[in-house]
Amino acid sequence: MKPIRVIQIGLGPIGVATAKLVQQKRALRLVAAVDVRPGVGKELGVPLFISVAAAVKKHPADVAIVTTGSRFLRARALLNEIFAAGLHVVSSCEELLFPWHRHPREADATDRAARRAGVACLGTGVNPGFVMDTLAAVTSGVCQRVDAVRVWRIQDVSRRRPQLQEKVGAGMDEDEFRGLVAAGAIGHVGLQESLALIAHGLGWKLSRVTERIEPVIAPRDCASRHMRVRKGQVAGVSQVARGFRDGKEVLRLDLKMFMGAENPRDEVQISGVPPMRLIIPGATPGDHATAAILVNCVPLIVTAPPGLRTMLELPVPRAIP
Amino acid sequence: MKPIRVIQIGLGPIGVATAKLVQQKRALRLVAAVDVRPGVGKELGVPLFISVAAAVKKHPADVAIVTTGSRFLRARALLNEIFAAGLHVVSSCEELLFPWHRHPREADATDRAARRAGVACLGTGVNPGFVMDTLAAVTSGVCQRVDAVRVWRIQDVSRRRPQLQEKVGAGMDEDEFRGLVAAGAIGHVGLQESLALIAHGLGWKLSRVTERIEPVIAPRDCASRHMRVRKGQVAGVSQVARGFRDGKEVLRLDLKMFMGAENPRDEVQISGVPPMRLIIPGATPGDHATAAILVNCVPLIVTAPPGLRTMLELPVPRAIP
Repeated sequence: MKPIRVIQIGLGPIGVATAKLVQQKRALRLVAAVDVRPGVGKELGVPLFISVAAAVKKHPADVAIVTTGSRFLRARALLNEIFAAGLHVVSSCEELLFPWHRHPREADATDRAARRAGVACLGTGVNPGFVMDTLAAVTSGVCQRVDAVRVWRIQDVSRRRPQLQEKVGAGMDEDEFRGLVAAGAIGHVGLQESLALIAHGLGWKLSRVTERIEPVIAPRDCASRHMRVRKGQVAGVSQVARGFRDGKEVLRLDLKMFMGAENPRDEVQISGVPPMRLIIPGATPGDHATAAILVNCVPLIVTAPPGLRTMLELPVPRAIP
Repeated sequence: MKPIRVIQIGLGPIGVATAKLVQQKRALRLVAAVDVRPGVGKELGVPLFISVAAAVKKHPADVAIVTTGSRFLRARALLNEIFAAGLHVVSSCEELLFPWHRHPREADATDRAARRAGVACLGTGVNPGFVMDTLAAVTSGVCQRVDAVRVWRIQDVSRRRPQLQEKVGAGMDEDEFRGLVAAGAIGHVGLQESLALIAHGLGWKLSRVTERIEPVIAPRDCASRHMRVRKGQVAGVSQVARGFRDGKEVLRLDLKMFMGAENPRDEVQISGVPPMRLIIPGATPGDHATAAILVNCVPLIVTAPPGLRTMLELPVPRAIP
């Protein structure tokens, strides 16, 4: 079998990790990488470009892995450029998991553009993309009836990298935290998309979706290698999305990332017949897992029907050799 | 959308439960049922037949759900008859999960027959079909590298139906148990198929597969509502399948069903990067879940490419409304 030729687009930490993983896979070949910042990614040892068009012109490829940002509207022009070059897309863009949720018209347009170009496009990742959506849908596969779905992702950030601790607001006072939430600078992107994907998978029309981002206040002093958080300061973030049908809450996704979180885990709980409960103790490690699922979806996207696809339309991703 | 027309073939307890579930689903319609024993299944309120040909002649359908037996070779003639009638198949036949494991030549022939007829055929269920295979493959989707996979399914049969307690040998003495194992009367069918499906999904060629069926001896007296097991008698069955690559064990599936089993659960453990562990406390309830997954796979099989398919080629099944 000829290897699938991959171009990595976006060379932040996740992008570089993903590109390196592509290089380890028998069935894939990294032919080039693209980043708007000239010079990044030299350690990959592949030709580097600052535009997709330039990369593709010199290095024909089959799939682009895109790790440039979280917002669908900002990704659209790049996606169209990639489609026009005839490449399939696997992307960590959080809103691309289910872009119809926030931007149905634009999502349909992107779907049409992919179909016209004869390529398939997928948004995935570990969250959104796996633990708070696909895994819940998979679990429901053994249910005769689903009345409600709850998902928790509880992460203790005290052993994680300092950037993540800052990102969740650890060490801030409450006012500062709320100001950053209001400015859109704190908060996980994609929770509503996870919720919308589950609802879509279960064939549910939601009448209402809500989301709240709140600080978790440290009940006592705590510390990581990188910072100290005093009792009463912000230890991290609690983000909850809820979906309703006919006024009744049927979906709840509960993401908590804070210093000193007890019983960290991913958990899916289905009320139904039979009731189901599934736990990943310790919670799936985000960074390794995101690079993995992006790469593991590459062989699935090249055989998918053209258009904007979701994780629930493709075969289950599994670790490729 | 026109409902998918379903014929249920095989009206044992699982078949009847499946047929009733089909009747509850908006997108499906049960048009007839077939069993070689005349008269069974009257409670379904649909036309009953003792042959597929007779049923299909009067009631055109899209999909046959087949719950007639565990062995692929015995199911082949029936499958061919269904293919010839132009119906897709979803079946609980355990060996059909991955028939290439024991019968590669015959599996290829069945695959060709389905392709010729333009229909798709799938073997699934809760075990095999979900907890000891698909779920392990799904979990590996977030792994960059998989070194080994272990799966446990530990069920406490003391609260289950008496037939199941007898089926696992509870209350027998060890000689009797071993005699029945040797005669093929005790033991779960499909464990090797689960193992082979995982290996296939991970792109692994196994050099050797082993399987052992052993009694679990009761360490103390125990009892269910239906039977008593004395210390030293058989409490149930332990069945372990192992897969090797280059002499190294890389896959182990461990199925234990016995009276008084502690910490009953389904568990997947992946050694790799990142390591993953996933637990379903209490273990997925077999009977409800099997009917559910058969029915939930019906919408997936009608859009699958013709041929003999596996759970890893279809989109993830989820509860359909």
